[in-house]
Amino acid sequence: MHVQSGAAVRTTVDECLSMQDGSMVELRGWVANKSDIGSLTFILLRDGSNYIQLVGKKGVSSDDVISIMKEVSIESAVLARGTLRSDARALNGKEVLVKDIEVIARAEEPWPINKSTVRSASFLYDNRHLSIRGMKSSSIMKIRSELIKAAFDFFYDHGFTFITAPSIVGTAVEGGATLFELEYFGKKVYLTQSAQFYEEAAICSFGKVFTMQPAFRAEKSKTPKHLTEFIMIEAEVAFNTQEDNMRLQEELLTYIYNRVAERRKREFDILGRRLKPVEKPFQRIKYDEVRDTAMKHGINFEWGEDIPTEAERLISRMFEQPFFITDYPLSARSFYHMCRDDDPRITLSSDLIAPEGFGEIATGGQRIHDYNTLLERIKSNNLPLESFRWYLDLRRYGMPPHAGFGIGVERVIRWLCNLKHIRATSLFPRTITRVYP
Amino acid sequence: MHVQSGAAVRTTVDECLSMQDGSMVELRGWVANKSDIGSLTFILLRDGSNYIQLVGKKGVSSDDVISIMKEVSIESAVLARGTLRSDARALNGKEVLVKDIEVIARAEEPWPINKSTVRSASFLYDNRHLSIRGMKSSSIMKIRSELIKAAFDFFYDHGFTFITAPSIVGTAVEGGATLFELEYFGKKVYLTQSAQFYEEAAICSFGKVFTMQPAFRAEKSKTPKHLTEFIMIEAEVAFNTQEDNMRLQEELLTYIYNRVAERRKREFDILGRRLKPVEKPFQRIKYDEVRDTAMKHGINFEWGEDIPTEAERLISRMFEQPFFITDYPLSARSFYHMCRDDDPRITLSSDLIAPEGFGEIATGGQRIHDYNTLLERIKSNNLPLESFRWYLDLRRYGMPPHAGFGIGVERVIRWLCNLKHIRATSLFPRTITRVYP
Repeated sequence: MHVQSGAAVRTTVDECLSMQDGSMVELRGWVANKSDIGSLTFILLRDGSNYIQLVGKKGVSSDDVISIMKEVSIESAVLARGTLRSDARALNGKEVLVKDIEVIARAEEPWPINKSTVRSASFLYDNRHLSIRGMKSSSIMKIRSELIKAAFDFFYDHGFTFITAPSIVGTAVEGGATLFELEYFGKKVYLTQSAQFYEEAAICSFGKVFTMQPAFRAEKSKTPKHLTEFIMIEAEVAFNTQEDNMRLQEELLTYIYNRVAERRKREFDILGRRLKPVEKPFQRIKYDEVRDTAMKHGINFEWGEDIPTEAERLISRMFEQPFFITDYPLSARSFYHMCRDDDPRITLSSDLIAPEGFGEIATGGQRIHDYNTLLERIKSNNLPLESFRWYLDLRRYGMPPHAGFGIGVERVIRWLCNLKHIRATSLFPRTITRVYP
Repeated sequence: MHVQSGAAVRTTVDECLSMQDGSMVELRGWVANKSDIGSLTFILLRDGSNYIQLVGKKGVSSDDVISIMKEVSIESAVLARGTLRSDARALNGKEVLVKDIEVIARAEEPWPINKSTVRSASFLYDNRHLSIRGMKSSSIMKIRSELIKAAFDFFYDHGFTFITAPSIVGTAVEGGATLFELEYFGKKVYLTQSAQFYEEAAICSFGKVFTMQPAFRAEKSKTPKHLTEFIMIEAEVAFNTQEDNMRLQEELLTYIYNRVAERRKREFDILGRRLKPVEKPFQRIKYDEVRDTAMKHGINFEWGEDIPTEAERLISRMFEQPFFITDYPLSARSFYHMCRDDDPRITLSSDLIAPEGFGEIATGGQRIHDYNTLLERIKSNNLPLESFRWYLDLRRYGMPPHAGFGIGVERVIRWLCNLKHIRATSLFPRTITRVYP
């Protein structure tokens, strides 16, 4: 870099926004936009932390500076040095009067994302490695990053141990139909669908555990709610009942939602999303009530079947706050769910539903902790006993009642950011038709 | 649960250790050990947060309580209520005089892990779902959990955005020999070896990014340093040089190491590991110096070859602090490495080496940011151009100089905890011979 350093402070845009007028700053970033008005030349600079206006002024900035600013192409990487000053008209209320500028890496012209190509979702996702630079795409990802940090802080502050479960597994947690299979040194193995079984082992050592890692579902469903690879935050707690479990979900969601809403206000503003604070306790409605309501609206399904997506969407639209659907029939749930003492057809489980039509964001429940009940359930579901040997084994050695849940990061972000399609919540989404870039 | 709640406070062991003597507490946990001395019956209770001694005393505790305490089996889950009091002889200096106790889940006898079986590594890893309850295994995992949280805090405090890169990829970052392949709706895809390429795309949007996610290597190497699935923390920063990159690694490692050493003192004590504080800057030695030293000790390898494991171990043993090996020849590095201006055979890259023989824990370097240089390198390495199309594309649109690194979580833990085999650092390790449990 040829430019002399002088007295300028190397800083990020976000940092310099809180510095005093008159400070000499040195910024590095990309040309998000540029324009000329009379004797003034403007560059909107972004550096990942924020945006700031660079100004070149004839008679004040040198001719070299002005000509570089006029000629630099959109999305070029530049280094600029100049004086910070307040200007109410500028984005974020500050601008930098440029003294030196250098193009570090010139971008080819034209920048492929324009008013016409931006209308094609397939073009944008084929060029996701470029389109993620957009103001909206990057805002979604900043919200996502903040959400994950908030979840980490929540769990650590509540005495949870972070664990990782293997991605390569020999056992299917959620059933065999939606498994990705691979060869592993001559063995047939699968990509994990959930960390739950491993968490259940871990709670007997750590009491409370959580995970944040990829989960995989080879579902052929091409819906705006499904990715084949997604991030799940899962938690499992020894001695917790389903009631404790729902309370924990309430606390977690309230904490992360309200913190992200507060700390990422700017990004939500960019997305035009106004968030109402989430308040606990969340309402709880039973499967039977959901079914009655759905049927009144002409959506019919047999008792014992899973709630169809359209019914879930209908109910979800009736709420302004997240809520739980409880008391799912056993026939609609996986084999490991514990049932009510007073009605063995009903599980101690719940789905946590986001309002406004966004639907399910988390699933949780109390797991069977008794050996014989679990053994019977594995047999009656015709599951391969050998694969579940270690999972059963846990029930022989002091497995207390316990409960847990998994929350889909992308689904929460889709709701928070009010997005039509879940792929916009993932930096490089994987769907049944997409593994590129 | 039949036991009446009374005035007891439901608490964790760790919380109750800082409560006042005389407090009535309610604890839930597992019987780690038990013994009788005269009129006293002891249970060592662990609940995942810590250990505490439960005491039953004839004449003070009821006969029922005494008999339950005598008869309960090791690793049973229990609920106990009683009065907290100080006792210098007890582990952690406190004990609970038991008033009520209930066995929540009785463990079968005998507990399979005993003085004889504990000597068999294959038995312990076949029963990892049980053996993780051990004092040492769980201490390693607590250290691991703290280390990952420390890394998250570090990166957030330094303005990094957390991203996740896909696990399912179409392109091999580190070369094709060690890829796990799978079928993806009729396409051939791979499990990721590194998030680096995706991070390189992301820095043009966020400036600084980091990841923490599984990476996969189908290496047939059966060494105490290799897992087929492991957790990598990777970071990439726009406008960083290799010098900045090494400084960032120094800061990160110093921060997480010293914080974990401080906050997990108890766990390091359990492991018998005394940690000396890590101090920056780390020493830097060149590949050529390493080669000279190795050859003086009879370990010969051609200039340009990668440093053999035994040479790395030899050098690592000569240090008490982590250090960098720099100036690797291009022939020993991947195609994307940038080379020195003054010597195109030498890369701007480094390995971060842990002392005491533990060897490499991180690899980093400056990446080629120029389109033509990268294109040439892809061609001269006979790599499929089509797979690298988007990666090359980044160099057309304002890619500045940038650098990054990947640090292997399990390797850092192996060093911190002074472990012979890396499998002990993973809750459910995956090696070429192990996918169970």
